[in-house]
Parts: sequence; C-alpha cells; structure tokens
Amino acid sequence: MDTIGITALIRELAALDYHTMHNRDFLLTWEKADDEIAATFTVAEILRGLRQRNITSRLFDSGLAVSLFRDNSTRTRFSFASACNLLGLTVQDLDESTSQIAHGETVRETATMISFMADVIGIRDDMYIGRGNTYMRQVASAVQAGFDEGVLRQRPTLVNLQCDIDHPTQSMSDMLHIINTFGGVENLAGRKIAMTWAYSPSYGKPLSVPQGVIGLMTRFGMDVVLAHPPGYEVMPEVEELARRQAAQSGGSFARVDSMAEAFAGADIVYPKSWAPFAAMERRTELYDQGDMKGIGALEQELLVQNSEHMDWTCTEELMRTTEGGAALYMHCLPADITGVSCDHGEVEAPVFDRYRVPLYRQAGYKPYVIAAMILLARKENAADTLAAILEGQRPRIR
Amino acid sequence: MDTIGITALIRELAALDYHTMHNRDFLLTWEKADDEIAATFTVAEILRGLRQRNITSRLFDSGLAVSLFRDNSTRTRFSFASACNLLGLTVQDLDESTSQIAHGETVRETATMISFMADVIGIRDDMYIGRGNTYMRQVASAVQAGFDEGVLRQRPTLVNLQCDIDHPTQSMSDMLHIINTFGGVENLAGRKIAMTWAYSPSYGKPLSVPQGVIGLMTRFGMDVVLAHPPGYEVMPEVEELARRQAAQSGGSFARVDSMAEAFAGADIVYPKSWAPFAAMERRTELYDQGDMKGIGALEQELLVQNSEHMDWTCTEELMRTTEGGAALYMHCLPADITGVSCDHGEVEAPVFDRYRVPLYRQAGYKPYVIAAMILLARKENAADTLAAILEGQRPRIR
Amino acid sequence: MDTIGITALIRELAALDYHTMHNRDFLLTWEKADDEIAATFTVAEILRGLRQRNITSRLFDSGLAVSLFRDNSTRTRFSFASACNLLGLTVQDLDESTSQIAHGETVRETATMISFMADVIGIRDDMYIGRGNTYMRQVASAVQAGFDEGVLRQRPTLVNLQCDIDHPTQSMSDMLHIINTFGGVENLAGRKIAMTWAYSPSYGKPLSVPQGVIGLMTRFGMDVVLAHPPGYEVMPEVEELARRQAAQSGGSFARVDSMAEAFAGADIVYPKSWAPFAAMERRTELYDQGDMKGIGALEQELLVQNSEHMDWTCTEELMRTTEGGAALYMHCLPADITGVSCDHGEVEAPVFDRYRVPLYRQAGYKPYVIAAMILLARKENAADTLAAILEGQRPRIR
Repeated sequence: MDTIGITALIRELAALDYHTMHNRDFLLTWEKADDEIAATFTVAEILRGLRQRNITSRLFDSGLAVSLFRDNSTRTRFSFASACNLLGLTVQDLDESTSQIAHGETVRETATMISFMADVIGIRDDMYIGRGNTYMRQVASAVQAGFDEGVLRQRPTLVNLQCDIDHPTQSMSDMLHIINTFGGVENLAGRKIAMTWAYSPSYGKPLSVPQGVIGLMTRFGMDVVLAHPPGYEVMPEVEELARRQAAQSGGSFARVDSMAEAFAGADIVYPKSWAPFAAMERRTELYDQGDMKGIGALEQELLVQNSEHMDWTCTEELMRTTEGGAALYMHCLPADITGVSCDHGEVEAPVFDRYRVPLYRQAGYKPYVIAAMILLARKENAADTLAAILEGQRPRIR
Repeated sequence: MDTIGITALIRELAALDYHTMHNRDFLLTWEKADDEIAATFTVAEILRGLRQRNITSRLFDSGLAVSLFRDNSTRTRFSFASACNLLGLTVQDLDESTSQIAHGETVRETATMISFMADVIGIRDDMYIGRGNTYMRQVASAVQAGFDEGVLRQRPTLVNLQCDIDHPTQSMSDMLHIINTFGGVENLAGRKIAMTWAYSPSYGKPLSVPQGVIGLMTRFGMDVVLAHPPGYEVMPEVEELARRQAAQSGGSFARVDSMAEAFAGADIVYPKSWAPFAAMERRTELYDQGDMKGIGALEQELLVQNSEHMDWTCTEELMRTTEGGAALYMHCLPADITGVSCDHGEVEAPVFDRYRVPLYRQAGYKPYVIAAMILLARKENAADTLAAILEGQRPRIR
Repeated sequence: MDTIGITALIRELAALDYHTMHNRDFLLTWEKADDEIAATFTVAEILRGLRQRNITSRLFDSGLAVSLFRDNSTRTRFSFASACNLLGLTVQDLDESTSQIAHGETVRETATMISFMADVIGIRDDMYIGRGNTYMRQVASAVQAGFDEGVLRQRPTLVNLQCDIDHPTQSMSDMLHIINTFGGVENLAGRKIAMTWAYSPSYGKPLSVPQGVIGLMTRFGMDVVLAHPPGYEVMPEVEELARRQAAQSGGSFARVDSMAEAFAGADIVYPKSWAPFAAMERRTELYDQGDMKGIGALEQELLVQNSEHMDWTCTEELMRTTEGGAALYMHCLPADITGVSCDHGEVEAPVFDRYRVPLYRQAGYKPYVIAAMILLARKENAADTLAAILEGQRPRIR
C-alpha cells in the first residue's frame, strides 16, 4: 500500500460517522452501527498500510493495556500484545487465579484497582454460557462508575477478546479477509457463505465463532447459511438477529441440517466444530452446583453425540460442489485436520494445505482489527490523528 | 490541575532539599528527612497533574524495572507496573521459584545478573518477620558492590514494595490522601488519627501497614492513637520511633486497648487486622526449623485468638462517635467487609460503601508515589527535569 | 568510552563486510564469517559505549521480540529482555506448555501466528541432543515460508539463546571479555586457553558451552586445549571443526585427558562441568521411547560416573601452574563452588572469589552481544544507523 492508498483510506474514514465509538467498548459487533463497523475495517487497513511503509502508528507515548484471560490462548495473547505494541501500550496481565476477582463488589474493586493507568482492558472469557459477556459488562460498569465518580481520570476501553456470545475480533478479521479476497465490500451482495458445523474429536468448542460469523456476515447482503446436525443449535437470540439483519441488508439467512446443502454453490465455506448451546447451558448449571462428576458425564455424552456426525467434514469432494469448485475456505485456527492433528477431524489435509496461505492471511488481520478498535475508542477524531501520523512519517524502525 | 498549579508545585519542589535522594533506595520512610518526604509527595502530585493534562512524563526512552515479588499481589504488581510505565520503564519479573536467589553469595550474584540494565528493582517480601527488610538490604549492598567495582554502570534504585517492617508506598499514598482530603499538610496539626486493629476471619495479615502508618503519620503534628487488643503488639522499635517522632513534630502518640477510645473524636480512622508481632516471630522460627506442623498449630491458635475480638469492627455506631460523626475512613484494601466478603469482618458494609470513592482515591495515589520515589532516586535535579517536561508539552496520547 | 572512541568503532564497523547478516538468523557462530563475528563484537561495544554516554540506542519505536524458552532461565531471560529493551522491542513470552507448538505442521502454524508483528524470535532449547538446533531451523524455515508467501510482511530474526550444539550468545560474550581483557583481538595469537571439564554434583549440564567455546575460540590463533576425563567427549563434528579452524587461524587445537596438562602455562582457563555426548544421545532415545525409568537409571549412572572425577576441580594450586600464576578464570555462571553452593564442585571458593568481578563483567557483555546480533540482522547499514544514533544524541534518561 502506498501513501496515496493510505490517504484515500483516511478520506474514506473521515466520511464515516464513527465519532460515537469514542470512549465506548467493543463487546458485540451487532451493537455497532454500520458506519462503526466500516470505520473499524478502514482503520485496520490504514494501520496495516502504515506499518508496511515503516511509519510508526504509536499513538501512546506510555500507557497500560490490561489483559484478563480466563483461559490459555497463545494466539489471542499474541494478537492483543501485537495490537497494543503497535499503538505504544504495554500489556499487563491480570492473572485471575491470584487476582481474587470474583463476584459483585469485588469485580468493582479489582476493576478499579487495575484501571488507574489503564487505557484498554482486553477480556477473554468464553468458558461458560451466560457468563463471559455478563462479566465484561460488570467490568465495564465498574470502570464507568469509577470514571463518573472521579476515581479514574479516564475510562479504559473494553475489548471483547472472545466471550460466550460473540468473538468480535475474530469475526471482524474474518470479514476483512472476505472483503479483501473479493475485492471490496461492494462485491459481496448475493455471495453465499456457509457457516457449517464440522466433526471434531474434542469436546465443547465455543459457540462464539459461529455466532460471531452469522451475527456479522448477515449485514452485507450475503446469503448466509448456517448448517449443523440436529442438536447443535446456537443461541436462539443470535439466530433471530442474523435473520433480521439478513433481511435488512438485502441478503438472506437460512438454517439447514446438511453440509452438502450448505456447500452447494457457496462462495465461502467455514466448517468448524462447536458445542450444542443447550448442553453448554446445562454445563453452566452443573458448574454452579459444583457437580464436577455431572460435567464429566456430560462431556462423555457430548463426545458420543459428536461421533455420530463424523461425516460432517470438509472434503475435497465437497469443495468441488462449491461455486466454481473454488470457494474460499476459512477457519479461525487451529483446525482439527484429518490425519495430521487427529484421525478424523474438521477438514481433510489436502483442502487445508491448499488454503494454508489464505488461512494465515485471515489470522494476520486480527492485530490490526484489535488496534483499530482501541484507536477508535480512544481518539474521537481518528481520521485527523491518522492523517497526522501519516504526515509525520516517523519510522517504526529507524 | 492546570499548568499554573503544576508550575507552583515544581517551584515548591525546587525549594526542598531532596538532592540527597539521588542514587538512594526507598526502604523505610523514617530513614528519609522531612524534605525528602515532602519532595516525594510533591513529585507525585506533579506527575498526577502532568498526566491529567496529557503531558507524558516519560523520563526513560528505554530501561528495565525488575520486580521481585515473594508473594502474589495483583494490586502492588499493577501499581508498580503503572509507575514504571508512566516513566518509560519496562517491568521484567524475576520469578523467585525459578531464579535460585537464595542466601549469601547467591543473592549477590543474582542481584548482579539482573541489574546490568536495571534502573529500578521493586521488592515485595513481607512473609516473615526479620526477613524482608534484611533481604532488601542484601540486594542493595550487592548492587552497590557491583557499582563500586565497575561491574554495573549504574546502581539500580531499590523500592520497598512492602516488607516485614514498613510499607512505604502504602503509607505515603495514605498520607497523600490525608493531605489532599484536609486541604494541605498545614491543616493536620492536632488532628486525631486512629490506627486500630480490627477483627478478620483470616490469619496473619502483615504488620507493615500499621507500622508504616504510625511510623509516618507521627511526623505531621497529629495525635496518633494505636489501638489493639492485648497481645496484638507491633514491633517495639517502631512504636518507640512513633513516640519519638510525635514528640518532635508537636503531636502525640498513644497506645490504647479500646477501639471506642481510639475512635472518639477522631478525624481519621484506619481499622485493619494484623497479626501479633510476637507470634510472627515464633512463626519465622518455626519456618527456619522447617516445622510446618508447628506453623499449622500456630495458625489455629491465632485464629482462635482473633475470634475473641470479633467486637473490634468498624460500625456505623462507632463512626458516629468520631469528629462530627464524619471521620475519614481509610483502608489499604482489600477489606474484610461484614456480610459481603465474610460473615464478620473489619468493617460494616454501610460504612465501607459510604467511603468507597475516597478509598479508591486513596489507592489511586500509589502509582504516582512509586513513580516519584523512582524519579527522585534517578534524577538529581528533579525540579529541572519536571520543568523541562512541562515545558516540552509532549502528549502522552497523540 | 567517549564520543571519539565510539566514532572510531563505527568507522571500524564500516570497514567490515557485515551486510550479509541482514535478514539472517544467528544460530551457530561457525556459520558466520570472520567479518560478521568481528562486526558483532564491534556493534556490541558501540552499544555499550552509547549507553555509557546516556545516548539511547532505541532502534525500534515499536516492535515485538518473542521469547521461546524450553526451560527456566533467569539469566538468559534477563539478558534477552535487556537487549530487546535497549533497542526498543517488547518481549512477549511464548509459554510452550500452553502454546501447543509441537511437531511438523504445527511448528509452521504457531511460528506464523506469533510472527505477524515479531522482529525477533529468541529460542532457548538445550534439553535434548539432536533437537534444539533442529527445532530452531524448523521455526526459521516456517517464518521464511511465511515471508516468501506474503503472509508475513517481514521475516523475524532468530537468535539462538542456547541449543544442543552451540551457545553463541555465551561464547561471543566470553570472547568479547577475552578480547577486552587482553587489550584487543590482535594480542590473542599464541595465547593458551584451557576449556576443561570439572566435577559437579549435578547431572547433565549442557554441552553447548564447551562446544561453543572450542567452536569460536579456535578462530583467533590461540592454542585451544579441550580437557576432560575419558567418556566426556563432546560432539565429534564440533571437535573436528575446532581442529580445522585452529589450523586455519594459525593456532592449535588439542584434546587432553588431564586438567593439570591443560592448565599448565594457560593464559585463560574455563573449568566447567558437562555431560558426555554419547550419554545425552542415549537420553534423547529414551525420551523418544517415553522411557522415564530408563532416564532415571541413566541419571544415576552419570552421577556415579561424575563422582569418579571429583579431583577435576579448579584449585588455587592448579591456578598457580598457569601463565604467571594469573590466568583469566572464566565461567558462564552459576558455578558450583566448593563449600559454598555444594560440598565439592567445579572450583574452590578462593579462586572464584578472586575472579568475581571479572566473572560478572564477562556476564555483563551478553545483553550487548544479543542486541548486536539483532541490530545487524535488522539493519543492512548498521554503521550508518549507529552513526545517526550517535549524532542524534537523544538521551536514554532525560
């Protein structure tokens, strides 16, 4: 990307109504207006262009980004660290096991204690249905209260790095990958995207990926098909939302129970395992009751249920049924690859191998998407800020 | 705080005799002269003002701050990380479990190995009476030797982030909160502050908080009252010091064995649990003998002893007996709140709730206090440095 | 070092043929040409000089350095962190236990996922003979593929922080210490250096230190003697390489089985324990077979074997047999010191004590050596870059 290209993107950004993102969190894509979504993509691309041209986009001379991860996640950790580093923020991990963050009062107190100098708080909490997003909102209202009462001089921005409902940094990266692959958002109307369940030998993969995908991709006039075996329903609210958004955007949303039907004529396929929503609700209940034996039994039950659908796998044969036999294959990674990482998995090795480079490119957008979310929340006039950065031409590497 | 206010503070700083702090550690408040204490408060306030005005106080273009924590502590970790980040230092944790730092020779060697590029070493070691501060001095003399012998090009500054004797970053933050609440240090003479023991269902809270408070607050002409049940004595040397300082400052120091007596007419109350000094000495002995069973028995004994004093709790009723019924309630957090974090604790929930905002503000001073300690140790002419920073007006966030 | 001294070093650097190091990894010293080795020393010294004069050598305004350590290592961790901080890079640890990096495909994927914004990857993997260096090359080819295919916009540089074959950051620091101690590389021809095995009560110390030393020190016209009891052979390829290099440089290489013979008339002695190569090969095989019992038995066997050579220890008596009784004693630290860290160890306490300051100085070169490796890999015209940095005179501490 050359300077002219970056300048053009900054001009596009300036025409969007994104100022509403200032001092707001990024928790669910469907809470964001179309212009806000577009602005996020645009800023991500501008940041990518600046870096390619060795222009530093260091917005912060100092500042902290708190990471609060309720599970281990190398990829998310690196994406968040990369985004923060790009902007000049230092990541400080909040280790939950030692941090005593719990319920009620304590969330408020700990949220305040970590926020005195925090510009951003990135949270990943996707383990229990009904919990992750709720927890994020508790933290958000805690820091808002701290700000309103003058305890915090600034209100740190929350970024949802995956919750039980949505995975916005993933779905936005996925979407940016689609936009760039198809040469622009204007080329997406009428394209068919198949978000389909696929068999995995492991249990309980999060629902936030398929939910994030149907909750975002239905806004661009595409024909979105959600496919899964009976019993693998996602959250009904998100499905309802997808249906509504598809209608509004001039696209469509359909649910089918056949992978073949979903793949037929698809421009994009996203085959990926997930756990049934209802089972995940039962799991949260068992967890609340401290019934670890019950959780163990549920896991066994779900593994058996999974194994009845080993034919849900992305094969070369299925790929040939897609549009021109050349649909864009997507995955959030890591994938369960048949014969590579497991005996039977979500995808056949030749399909995965053929799409390795686009898959890695898809993953590569995430740091920029996260950085864009942060930048738009911290700078009311992001276009001006970015124009000044471009003009300044300060090198990232001397 | 506006530019005029910051300029006035820098002028105040320039009038103080603080140059003696250069290249020195901050281990105990009572090792610091009055002007050095005043300078620390003043620099903390200047740094707070600069940040409010979005002026970066990044002193270091690069540099390491080593954190050496012998227990888990989210709050201290974040305070130290915030302070270092504010000044431009990168925190590098020294994980004790893997670092082999032990006794004698090894302290010297490891202290040297981590210090080649360290500007600061923050140590928290409060677990065993007679150990923490001693250990800090071993590290201090190790880096001094390394500097004197030309092995280290600079001598990193040690900051005591809590030891067995004092908790200077806490007591200094507490004091700055008091100064600001009462409109200046000149308004403190004759004020009564009650540092009192309070019941907690947990065992062995550190003595460094009450010791730090009486070791600092007695220097400002206040009437300092230390209250605890018989058997909860603090270190006799610190009590003696408090008595001496109170006399010198024109205030007073008294020890009483009644919470009611301490609260009566108090302007400030600080009810907080701690372990008896003598028991903590026995605990260190048991630890040295590897007598873990003995430590277990001692814990049980202390919990029983605690439970005889469940009436030592900060109630609304007691609060009404303070000056105007409106004493400033203080706590280093987290507090044991009755009916919230435990059945019976240090304070009733309504009292805590009423003081939540001032309590959080109290905690919010700590990053600035730590940063001030670092700055005064690294820059001989801190006033000039800060004046240049103010004049430079380089934004923290572009 | 004054500005004139630094300028002279930059001029020396400019005369060297180091441009070939650009975008290359630093895995084995013997893969580097003489000019490349010389350039690394020169840049390390320039960086040391700049820091002494409080001139920041922050090359990167932002950027990530990934650390991938397969064991715990405080010293290496701090050296790498110091080097990265000096240049402006932020270290992001990749925790192997959670990162799922394994074999084949997965190395490629994870290497890519962590590299989107990585400028450097530092790897320490010295546990199994035949593995560490191989693994580094897998990572290197993964990021090269990512770069070639356009997935990575830049190819991060790999730095070997210790593998099964070489320990280049150690041997280069050792060599720089020798050069400075003897007043320049031109004074080394004909000097005798004794790299000798020494008894340690612990088992399986890495071979990479002696191999790194004989693989590097034989390039400077010195008489290099490798001494060990029968059965403690190092990798034959490295010994062969040492022999060849010694011949080319006008020095010599000899292997003897007597510590006394090695020490006699030596200018430099490096007594240090290591494990037999053949035993380490067996250990890797046992590990591959999952034979933990076999590994335990092997350990016992090796400890017994070690104990037959307790007379291999660096005594004052032996030191008196060295050149002028004043050979430079070296060790990579931590050393097993008789009567201090163990009953019988590699060195007598009085010898160690006498050399403490030079030993610490030896260790102190490592951050600069690592930073030099990074700088030369990232900047094609390092001399120009460093000249600009010197001229800019931007202070590290304001």
